[in-house]
Amino acid sequence: MAADLVRGLSAPTIALIDPGDQGSLEADLYAALLVGRRLLRHPLVRSILPDLYTAIPREPALAEAMRPGEMAREKKVKALIDRAIARGELRADVDRRATTDLLIGPLYWRIVVLGERCDRRQLKQLAHMTAAAIAAGGLAPD
Amino acid sequence: MAADLVRGLSAPTIALIDPGDQGSLEADLYAALLVGRRLLRHPLVRSILPDLYTAIPREPALAEAMRPGEMAREKKVKALIDRAIARGELRADVDRRATTDLLIGPLYWRIVVLGERCDRRQLKQLAHMTAAAIAAGGLAPD
Repeated sequence: MAADLVRGLSAPTIALIDPGDQGSLEADLYAALLVGRRLLRHPLVRSILPDLYTAIPREPALAEAMRPGEMAREKKVKALIDRAIARGELRADVDRRATTDLLIGPLYWRIVVLGERCDRRQLKQLAHMTAAAIAAGGLAPD
Repeated sequence: MAADLVRGLSAPTIALIDPGDQGSLEADLYAALLVGRRLLRHPLVRSILPDLYTAIPREPALAEAMRPGEMAREKKVKALIDRAIARGELRADVDRRATTDLLIGPLYWRIVVLGERCDRRQLKQLAHMTAAAIAAGGLAPD
């Protein structure tokens, strides 16, 4: 039943998460964070998302139902990174996995875990800082 | 009862989270991420933490019990930022709230939410990228 609910929520969610090209990496990140905030602060999403992720290891049908949403998210992040590489803002070998964690993690932590707010000024600051992190992600660590 | 459990876990957790001065912002971040990973990937922590945060709005006693741990975490992040300012690596007006979200969020997302691994090379890369993000956090967004 939870799997049906998740499947039913997936289509509109996927449609929501496509702000498209905003002209720069930082602007693309800000647009993605705006969309992410709209999604994560929805009371239904905020209240069930942690439980869904907790239940996944115990319920394969749930993992299956969430896959289209996860794949859509990965595709959008990939498109955002590819646009930045095409613009010359990022090196082609940028760390895509760390980029995804840095884009999603701080917002998820603030809104879903802590249940706190994040206004537009703070989102803009987060986009600015995340862009700097991603730009540094093409460099190999020591 | 959940509150008692949390209080019982707090003391050793607080003792754990103090890697101290490692000589640079990036090295301090890496040390903090190593300690955070050790804590977050503990099976007990991983399995109860999302539920604890979900339950807080409904149970004031739980919020009260978690406060010493939260305050200890805030104090450690503050010390890490203060050391970087003293070294001249960060401006004094760095965004402390965004810094905290960027330090904790990506690791929490990867280990607790997705249940995935993060090896030392990836932690080092995350420290490198997070240091760049924090350094950019002293600048006012447009």
